[in-house]
Amino acid sequence: MKFFLSLALCLFSLSAFSQAQDAAQIRKIFDEALERGESYEMLRYLTKEIGGRLSGSPQAAAAVEWSRQQMMAYGFDTVYLQPVMVPHWVRGDREVGRILNSKKLGSKEVKVVSLGNAVGTGPKGTIGQVIEVKDFQELAALGRENVEGKIVFFNRAMDPKLMDTFSAYGGASGQRGAGPSEAAKYGAIGAIVRSLSSFKDDIPHTGSTRYALNVPKIPAVAISTNNADMLSALLADDKDLQFYFETSAKMLPDVLSYNVVGEIRGSEFPEEIIAVGGHLDSWDLSEGAHDDGAGCVQSIEVLRLMKALDYKPKRTIRAVMFMNEENGLMGGRKYAELAAQNNENHIAAMESDRGGFLPIGFGISGTKSEQEKMLSWAPLFQPYGIYQFKRGGGGADISPLRTQDVPTIGYIPDSQRYFMYHHTAIDNFEAVNQRELELGAAAMASLIYLIDQYGL
Amino acid sequence: MKFFLSLALCLFSLSAFSQAQDAAQIRKIFDEALERGESYEMLRYLTKEIGGRLSGSPQAAAAVEWSRQQMMAYGFDTVYLQPVMVPHWVRGDREVGRILNSKKLGSKEVKVVSLGNAVGTGPKGTIGQVIEVKDFQELAALGRENVEGKIVFFNRAMDPKLMDTFSAYGGASGQRGAGPSEAAKYGAIGAIVRSLSSFKDDIPHTGSTRYALNVPKIPAVAISTNNADMLSALLADDKDLQFYFETSAKMLPDVLSYNVVGEIRGSEFPEEIIAVGGHLDSWDLSEGAHDDGAGCVQSIEVLRLMKALDYKPKRTIRAVMFMNEENGLMGGRKYAELAAQNNENHIAAMESDRGGFLPIGFGISGTKSEQEKMLSWAPLFQPYGIYQFKRGGGGADISPLRTQDVPTIGYIPDSQRYFMYHHTAIDNFEAVNQRELELGAAAMASLIYLIDQYGL
Repeated sequence: MKFFLSLALCLFSLSAFSQAQDAAQIRKIFDEALERGESYEMLRYLTKEIGGRLSGSPQAAAAVEWSRQQMMAYGFDTVYLQPVMVPHWVRGDREVGRILNSKKLGSKEVKVVSLGNAVGTGPKGTIGQVIEVKDFQELAALGRENVEGKIVFFNRAMDPKLMDTFSAYGGASGQRGAGPSEAAKYGAIGAIVRSLSSFKDDIPHTGSTRYALNVPKIPAVAISTNNADMLSALLADDKDLQFYFETSAKMLPDVLSYNVVGEIRGSEFPEEIIAVGGHLDSWDLSEGAHDDGAGCVQSIEVLRLMKALDYKPKRTIRAVMFMNEENGLMGGRKYAELAAQNNENHIAAMESDRGGFLPIGFGISGTKSEQEKMLSWAPLFQPYGIYQFKRGGGGADISPLRTQDVPTIGYIPDSQRYFMYHHTAIDNFEAVNQRELELGAAAMASLIYLIDQYGL
Repeated sequence: MKFFLSLALCLFSLSAFSQAQDAAQIRKIFDEALERGESYEMLRYLTKEIGGRLSGSPQAAAAVEWSRQQMMAYGFDTVYLQPVMVPHWVRGDREVGRILNSKKLGSKEVKVVSLGNAVGTGPKGTIGQVIEVKDFQELAALGRENVEGKIVFFNRAMDPKLMDTFSAYGGASGQRGAGPSEAAKYGAIGAIVRSLSSFKDDIPHTGSTRYALNVPKIPAVAISTNNADMLSALLADDKDLQFYFETSAKMLPDVLSYNVVGEIRGSEFPEEIIAVGGHLDSWDLSEGAHDDGAGCVQSIEVLRLMKALDYKPKRTIRAVMFMNEENGLMGGRKYAELAAQNNENHIAAMESDRGGFLPIGFGISGTKSEQEKMLSWAPLFQPYGIYQFKRGGGGADISPLRTQDVPTIGYIPDSQRYFMYHHTAIDNFEAVNQRELELGAAAMASLIYLIDQYGL
């Protein structure tokens, strides 16, 4: 009995000791990030010197080369490229929208942006009567007799009452992803989509649409939330109103691009890989600062922090810059394909793709015991205001790894401001706050450190 | 025994019932604020239509009249003014700073802003050798022989490692408040203060200085953190460097101004008052959006939310727009003085003066039982990411009420971005996010609701 008591005491002290050690290491990580963090300066380069980085663009190629050089300059053990073919969609020069025949306004210009992957209207434009719906049920109820030859206006708003704005996004984003093809099934000639914004403002949000097979590809544009409200109000008693829009978007042949990988080799279990990443591509309208320049530089910073603190990881820590999250996910798929092909053993993968905002937590997808292990570390993050440790999480780029049973972790920053910037022309460097960005990198590095120490 | 068991069960159900009721009421408050909140539109008016509101300025008078009208328009039961004499400091037109005789740069212009309440240099300006110190100990060690006839440069940085940036501010703000007079004690002819910013940037921050009695009043300016770093680097091997600055600030005679009070009369205990406020005055360099337009409109919104939800408070809920927090606190003092004079029974006072950022908590100063009562409500705020309930808190304007043993509550939003904007030219409407602002008002209204229901 005495022996067991001593053993228990001994184990308890060991655990108390290692907990204090972990707390101290995490404090060091945060101090380094807050005093000498380099995420912000990296982001400045990526956004200001390179800019928007749509897959297939020269800027995407520049970003590949920049991140390769940056990780080499930091002295990571290995830095390499993973070739991957990606879609090459271009917006073209002309984007014009106009309300016509309005009883109240006559003709009025409305800012439009083509949805990503969408076909253009060509120089003749698309013109038609507008029929407004809130969801696909309404569309189906209208049927072909009411939709054929018209432009469908999807006007579903994000629910402002949800604290997690990504849930609100999820509740409305179907109209952008699947809306145009749904409308085309009933003979629509074009689609207008209410921007996926948490705010009433004048800024249109782009984003991918996915054409269904065997359905005509119709052109599709987004308009701002204020313009959507205006259009809806006009339509209420103005059945003759027409909308004209012209876009010159087109899909070009696929091009060769790359994921960029940098790693620090593990000292004890080099075959066990912990990946952390973001996506290097962005939409073309802005510099792609929150989406997802932030996640890229934070992922590089996780490894840099370890080196700066002279921390030698037991496992291999890998920063991955995924290509083509926005309009294809070809990079994420390729990464998982190569991981399987090379029999790589990923013990965890983390993604930062919710913007460079204040860190509030992490979500994990995995087995119950993997989830519980991560949840048990929550108290170590309390001093940093990081309180949300929850089941379920990951990121688009790392989602293909789930089929190999890799636990995936989504880094969660506060989401209140994200859908002001997301996929707009204002997602620029100035929209990112230095402390919030660096704190995020520290939070990510701290969790990676714990996974490196204890596994999941 | 059975009786007590039944009683206990009954009390338990009652408490579970009222907890569910409270959770539902708080959900309603957040829904109303997120769907139809009016803080943001009020803030737009106060910042864009009125602008900076330094005590004694025409804009401060306009803000008094606006908030009076706004609260009348909302139909609060009583709206009235509390006359109070306030200092009337003016910056004047000229603010010029220049490094002279630098070995490296020769002569170089440096943006300066006069500290609030400071005297001006007059058209001849102040010129002198610069002596850099980090704190008052260093200054004392230098003594009169090294300081007399020179300009003291206080270059203490805010500690970036502190998560609560207000603590970092507290650790460095003495150089602004007391620095000029400390320097004057040793014969200095002017003071330059490193801006109290969490960031390295080019924006100088103003703020009050307080001249000590019987010490010469010397002119004092702030320079940006980047310029402070530059000046410090130049001084390292350039003892002949001089600094010239010219300011035309001056203190005019006190003027009559007002606190503005609006209240909803309590239905059961009208004599018990719960006050919630912010300060209406701001610095003159910007529109005073975070500091403290946000706190004012949130306080009005607390009462508006109650009316919008048809909630009839048991106690009297009072929104107070305090005047002159920035350079005198005359409004806060007058409010407490009148409360004592009129034998008012404040059961709690809350202040919002940390910007319109994401709500994370509340701090309370009061008796142990008052603190514990508030802390016990924390779980009701968890769904909204509000996790920091702590002992100690309040606000400058409500601090005079503490001498009457009124428990004071400080509303705590996230502080990471605050000291980018604080007292600068960029504390404008655009720096405030609508959802963060409205969530703050909802958080404040929710806690006021609980205090109204149960007392403290």
